[in-house]
Order: sequence, then C-alpha cells, then structure tokens
Amino acid sequence: MANYVRTFGEIPGQVEGTSFYSREQVRKAKLHAHNQAGISGTGKQGADAIVLNGGYPDDRDYGEIIVYTGHGGQDSRTKLQIADQTLDDSGNAGLVKSQLDGLPVRVIRGFEEDSPHAPDEGYRYDGLYRVVRHWFKTRDDGFQVCQFLMVKIGSPSDVVDPELPTEIPPGTTLEPLKPVGPAGRSKTTINKVNRRAEVVQRVKAWHGNRCQVCGETVALPSGPSSEAAHIKALGVPHNGPDVEENVLCLCPNDHKRFDNGALYLTDDLEIVDALTSAVGKQLHTHPSHNIGIEYVRYHRACWVKET
Amino acid sequence: MANYVRTFGEIPGQVEGTSFYSREQVRKAKLHAHNQAGISGTGKQGADAIVLNGGYPDDRDYGEIIVYTGHGGQDSRTKLQIADQTLDDSGNAGLVKSQLDGLPVRVIRGFEEDSPHAPDEGYRYDGLYRVVRHWFKTRDDGFQVCQFLMVKIGSPSDVVDPELPTEIPPGTTLEPLKPVGPAGRSKTTINKVNRRAEVVQRVKAWHGNRCQVCGETVALPSGPSSEAAHIKALGVPHNGPDVEENVLCLCPNDHKRFDNGALYLTDDLEIVDALTSAVGKQLHTHPSHNIGIEYVRYHRACWVKET
Repeated sequence: MANYVRTFGEIPGQVEGTSFYSREQVRKAKLHAHNQAGISGTGKQGADAIVLNGGYPDDRDYGEIIVYTGHGGQDSRTKLQIADQTLDDSGNAGLVKSQLDGLPVRVIRGFEEDSPHAPDEGYRYDGLYRVVRHWFKTRDDGFQVCQFLMVKIGSPSDVVDPELPTEIPPGTTLEPLKPVGPAGRSKTTINKVNRRAEVVQRVKAWHGNRCQVCGETVALPSGPSSEAAHIKALGVPHNGPDVEENVLCLCPNDHKRFDNGALYLTDDLEIVDALTSAVGKQLHTHPSHNIGIEYVRYHRACWVKET
Repeated sequence: MANYVRTFGEIPGQVEGTSFYSREQVRKAKLHAHNQAGISGTGKQGADAIVLNGGYPDDRDYGEIIVYTGHGGQDSRTKLQIADQTLDDSGNAGLVKSQLDGLPVRVIRGFEEDSPHAPDEGYRYDGLYRVVRHWFKTRDDGFQVCQFLMVKIGSPSDVVDPELPTEIPPGTTLEPLKPVGPAGRSKTTINKVNRRAEVVQRVKAWHGNRCQVCGETVALPSGPSSEAAHIKALGVPHNGPDVEENVLCLCPNDHKRFDNGALYLTDDLEIVDALTSAVGKQLHTHPSHNIGIEYVRYHRACWVKET
C-alpha cells in the first residue's frame, strides 16, 4: 500500500478494544498494512501488526499469550499446506526482526478465530504484544511452519527474564511440575524462583562462567559472567523443565545464536553451524553436568527437519 | 548467621505488606540475613534482600522505582563517607550478581527512610524488585558510591526491554522530552516506542549490524544481528535521550561489557578495558553516526573517577 507508513506501538485515536467491521476498516485505521495478509511487516523494518483470524490450526490463543503461526506455503484455495514456511517470507522475517529489536506488535483478533478471546463479529484491536521467541514446527503432514510466542506487554505473563517460565494458563492440560531438589526436601512445590536460582548457580559454577560453545567468559568488574540458556525453552508451548540437564552455560553471543537457531547440537553434542550445516567441535562439558539428550533433540527439531 | 539459608523470592508466610517492629523480627521471619546491614547477599550467591532505611542521602525512592546506594566506606559513628565503595563489598557484589542472574530481591522499607513510601514505624516487607543496572556515582565530597536501579517486578515500570525508558514518576523535576524527528512533524509528543524503533533501525543500518567495538556481527538465520546500547542510560536516574548520538551498535557480549563498566570510551572514542586500564583501538564509526561526547563522558564517569 503506497501510503502506509510503518508505525510501531499505539496508533493515535485507535484505543485497545476498538471494533471494526472489516479488514479494510482495520487497514484504513492504519492499524495494519494489508487487507488480507495476516502479518504487517518486513525483515528490514520489523512487523508492526498481526491479525489472528483462524488462518492456521497450529495457532494457540491463551489471551495474554499467543502462539502465532507464520505465513507461507498454504494453497490459497484449499487452505492446505503445500510447502514449508521459511524466514524468506517478509512477514515471518518481520516478526523475527520485531523479536530481536524489542518492537511491539499490534494484535487484531478476528471473528473467524476459534477461541474464547475472539470477537463475535468483525475485528477488534487488542493491544500491544511482544514477540518473545520463534521456532519451526514440523507438523503431522510433514510440512514445517514458523511459530512465534507472543506475550501481551505489561500483562502478568510479560516477565522480564525471558528464561523465567511463562505462567501456564489455567485449563491447559500439562503434567504438574515434579518437585526437584536435594534429598530430604518436602514434597510441597518448591518456590519456582528459588529453584531457578539454584539451577543457574550450579551450572555456571561447574563451567566457571565459561561458554560451553566458545570457551570464553565475559569478564566484568564483578568477575567472570555468563548466561544460563534453557535447551528446551521454558514456558508455553515448549514447557521445558527448569533443571540442570536442560541448561547450558553460554556467553551472550552464543546464547543469542542458540535461542534463534543459528546453532544446534547433534546427539553427540557436536556444535552445528546452522547457516552452513558444518559440524564443528563438541560442546565443552563438565563431569557433573549431565545434558539431557531429549532436550537437545527437541531443540534441534525446532530448527531443522529431522530426516 | 549460621542458620540462614539464602532463599530468593517470596518467603512462605510472609506476604507483601507485613509489618515488623524491629530488624531482628525481619531477620527471624527469614526475610533478610542480618540485623543491621542493609544488603543480604554475597557475590557468589547474589543478594536476596535489602533494607531501605535512610542509610544514604543518595538513595531515591519513587515507589516502583528505587535508586539504592550500596554499602561500604561509611564511618559507623559519624555516618560520614570516608572511603569509596567498591564491588569487593559482599553486599554490593551480591546485588550485581542478582542483576546479572535475574534474581529477585526482597525490599523491606524502614521508618527512618525519608520518603512518602516509608512506614510510619518499624519495618514493612514491600515485595520483590529486580536490579536493572548499577553504576558508580562520585559525590560532591569526592567519594564514590555504588548505586543500583531497582524496579518492582510486575509493576508498570517493570518493562521487558531494559532499553525502553522507565517512566519518570510524576512530580519529578525533569525537562520535558523535546519532540524529535524529521522536519514537518507536529509538535505533539511523538510515540516514544516508534521513535525508539527509528533510532535503533538507523544506527544498526549504518553499521550493518556490526559491533562498533569488536567489528563482528552475530549471524542468525534471519540475517546479521546486533544490539542497540544507549551510552547514557535511558530512564531514572540517568535520563539519557533516545537519539542516535546516544546509541552504539554492539554485539551482545560487548553490550554486556559496556553496560557493566568492563569497558568505556575516551573522548577520542578509544576503547578502554576497565579491568586493565589498557587503552585500545578506536570505536568503529560511520560518517553519518555522530556520537555525543557528553554521553561518552557521562558513561565514563559512571565507572571511573575522573582525575
């Protein structure tokens, strides 16, 4: 659209909760660039808005938390997937850009969405969401779709530490968290935050704050530093456990690479550069640090189709 | 205290708002390790609690936002500062550890604090705060104190992107934000989020997502990536402006180093390794990217005492 100026955040005059009869009206209100496409955005600028209107059965709408499926590879007539989705698609690339740059995305829900949060008719602007992470899901039909975890900015689910578990919405069928900890602890659920602190400390201590990928530490005046990265991501929808077997000690750069699919691990813990598919050295390990092969495989499956 | 087990987050049975007659009671409730010291924590474990009780005139208490002064160098009798504070102090090191590891800190306010948020008598547990950043302030008396920006977890001030400005609390005397942007924009305040997006895009584009310190990019499947770091930090209390002159394009590792005083810049934009004081190469620059010397000096002063 020639006159569309990509604008992030709120659009003056369009408050959260405003309803519209049609996509055309949404576009005319400057909330979204397009009349039909779900994602308003490009890889260069980022995505400023999405419409959630039942386009994919892979979507999940929990209100404050949305698992949004990307664009591409769908036969427009039959709505069947006929090819994989990729980051070459400008909408998908736009949402990744918004994630990496911390840009808010306007969310518009449509009546065709199968969710208690959808409007009964028309479309409704539902405020600003943040893209927390993305990954690829291989569906039962064998095709790969790109998915985005989105969280409503300022809501209780919008936690600062992206590694802190996103609350599992009530009514979601998931196994209850099993209590973990040293022998002798009571069976009551251990304070999630405190357990997290212990897991992080332990892993960083084993590795002396050295990155398991590159071997370096980021030396600060306070001492050597590193980041704890969950292999199978915490929270919806991956629900990885908060245990040492599911955590790596990484430098910020490799943490970003790992979380965004620039590298992944083989079953033998060799580091694969996803951009070239080159298999490199093995991960630095520590005798006390058992790394869960199931989490390694789960992470890898988020980035490459298993053959 | 022999029996104190450092525990992060909420203490069972001690809800936010609970009052106590004395520091001893606070300690017995397991909210804090000590009877007198302000900070409960060590560099190794992190800080799990602080008491805000008027110990330093440099403290600022805005409710959701606290600027907390660290420990050390104060004559216990006169309360005058007689030496610089450093990160060798276990309390200060503990708060830095909590910052870097994303550990929540319990905040207890005391009646001696000179603030509308202080209790009239005794002490009150006021919930969990996050340590957002730390720096050093050289006071008028020439001594350096360590300060910590703390934000109440889950409050409107607890924004996910640490670079997004923390809201200036009402009543704070600060200059109003001047509208910036291309010629022809109206004088109404430009959407803060949208301006931020433009500033970030422009700086990253000038540098092609290459780090101005190390020259590298973090290559992801979505393309080269980098982070925008404000030189003079946004928000309380530094209030750096959200403009290109105050932003650097950095890789995550150097961003962490820069924000935590592991490196700073000379007036000639040479990169100084704070751990060794070695002066290195000049920052990578771009002809369109003017870097504000006043912001460089401000940042440097947060980490080294000017001679």
